[in-house]
Amino acid sequence: MVKESVAVIGSVYRGSVAARIAGQNALEKTDLFERDVPMWVFQEQVEGRNLTDIINEKHENVKYLPGAKFPENVIANPDLIDTVKNATLLIIVIPHQFLPKTLAALKGKINPNARAVSLIKGVEVVGADINIFAKVIERELGIRCSALSGANIANEIALEKFSETSIGYADRKDGEIFQKLFDRPYFRVSIVEDVEGVSLCGAMKNIVAIACGFNDGLQWGDNTKAAIMRVGLLEMKRFCQEFFPSCKDATFVEESAGVADLITTCLGGRNRKVAAAHAETGKPFEQLEQELLGGQRLQGTGTAKEINEYLTHKGKVDDYPLFKTVYEIAFENKPAKELTSRL
Amino acid sequence: MVKESVAVIGSVYRGSVAARIAGQNALEKTDLFERDVPMWVFQEQVEGRNLTDIINEKHENVKYLPGAKFPENVIANPDLIDTVKNATLLIIVIPHQFLPKTLAALKGKINPNARAVSLIKGVEVVGADINIFAKVIERELGIRCSALSGANIANEIALEKFSETSIGYADRKDGEIFQKLFDRPYFRVSIVEDVEGVSLCGAMKNIVAIACGFNDGLQWGDNTKAAIMRVGLLEMKRFCQEFFPSCKDATFVEESAGVADLITTCLGGRNRKVAAAHAETGKPFEQLEQELLGGQRLQGTGTAKEINEYLTHKGKVDDYPLFKTVYEIAFENKPAKELTSRL
Repeated sequence: MVKESVAVIGSVYRGSVAARIAGQNALEKTDLFERDVPMWVFQEQVEGRNLTDIINEKHENVKYLPGAKFPENVIANPDLIDTVKNATLLIIVIPHQFLPKTLAALKGKINPNARAVSLIKGVEVVGADINIFAKVIERELGIRCSALSGANIANEIALEKFSETSIGYADRKDGEIFQKLFDRPYFRVSIVEDVEGVSLCGAMKNIVAIACGFNDGLQWGDNTKAAIMRVGLLEMKRFCQEFFPSCKDATFVEESAGVADLITTCLGGRNRKVAAAHAETGKPFEQLEQELLGGQRLQGTGTAKEINEYLTHKGKVDDYPLFKTVYEIAFENKPAKELTSRL
Repeated sequence: MVKESVAVIGSVYRGSVAARIAGQNALEKTDLFERDVPMWVFQEQVEGRNLTDIINEKHENVKYLPGAKFPENVIANPDLIDTVKNATLLIIVIPHQFLPKTLAALKGKINPNARAVSLIKGVEVVGADINIFAKVIERELGIRCSALSGANIANEIALEKFSETSIGYADRKDGEIFQKLFDRPYFRVSIVEDVEGVSLCGAMKNIVAIACGFNDGLQWGDNTKAAIMRVGLLEMKRFCQEFFPSCKDATFVEESAGVADLITTCLGGRNRKVAAAHAETGKPFEQLEQELLGGQRLQGTGTAKEINEYLTHKGKVDDYPLFKTVYEIAFENKPAKELTSRL
């Protein structure tokens, strides 16, 4: 049997967590995986030194995952093409806005027999077209791409607290090899033949988390919050099954990527937090992104806008009252207290 | 059309909330309901006066729901039989340990055409027999009984914060009349032909809340908590459908009584709180019930014990690893940190 060779594209928060897990398994499962796990790092300077040099000396991403040591076989590399040159398994975990440029650079430079797994959140919407990023990767690189998503707050996994995740696959063999690559005693991986459901849950939960943030900012309590999550889960499921008919019921109800990730994201997380601040203060989201996130964009409002654009093209905005209301509150000055008016 | 006459059996916390809602609707929907809503109150003295006298003077249950005014048509009555003498709709909302005595007193004293709705939590287990309390009421009183359950923290509903609930019915007409009796702009009622699913969710969620309390006491974080809730929902659904085959999928996934109530109960509530204290301090539950609940018994540990007894009789304990582990931690000195060992 030929061993698989792993490369990680991305190193910020979840990228470092993924590299750490893959590195641990590559060290132990020597019959399956080559020892070294290169990790592409967008080069930056930390206290006057290259971040890659610090990572390779300290075996720790001091900037984006401080406190969690990498196994020594995880090797930071600032050169994207050099990182992937031997890879048969690609873990892609970068913010979605950097994906087009990264894929353009990778095109023709990867092993044509490689398979990828996407940990990227969000969806690509262009007018009446909607795509998950696993499909974008397949389209641009010409290789199969699975998706990994679940109730996975990065710093809890870095501390090796018990978590679960889901991998959606199109080809079962891909699901199985990525399961072996990621499964740890503290990180249980289940696989399901549903790339789209797993990916879409990871995107749409953030819209529901925005709604839960409004709830928390208005101090409406746990009954209302649970109602929002219930309606949110149903709208997620309905949307996915209307526009991606292959999505499976079980992904929403039984998978970590479904109900469990929704719960985690609605309990904590930045989407919930910034939306709570919006409901409390009335400040626009752009201002709060500056004040609370140093200018980083919020996933949930972005996805709410994209889904609204898509549903508008399809003439179906009114079929998704929670998504519609979140969009109107975030982008059309509707008061947050009208959140439950359509539920 | 003959008007329905409502009576509420119970006045502690949720009993007062139910009477308040029913009273508001009886005042407005004069074509459907008789004006007065008598509420049976187990008589006790508050500052030297009968609690019923205080309620009827102040229109407020100063002991069990302070701060929320009843409409004037809710009338406290210390005499159980006098309370129900005209009733065609009975709302039964008492702690389950008082049910046998109450039903024995009611037998032969109610309108034989009355219909009931049970808001009682828990299940009746006698060896290899398991019953929901709606069925116990039907058996003892010879009338049909629906069940109401949902993400319904009493004091949030008393403040008229937005909530949802579910009514499970066997006869659709019963579901519809109870929906009219309970539905308010701040309290949305859905009805589903599944008395057993609605009732059982209301009982079994408390076992999962105990597990979430262990998680919180051990400071394991939100990933693990979401995993526990995911597994808990699946075990609830599997148990119900194995032993009550008429239970519907939708009750667990789409109803407030299912996933939403599970969420609310696992976020807050006494089951979660006392279990967290157990995991933190190692004190036995009986001691914590004394210290934190003034000797009141916890629902979740009681239900875990009953379900364990039932599953033991059926030879199926190992099919429900989360339920089994919660039982062992609560009653057999298993350390709480082994909670995830079987997940």
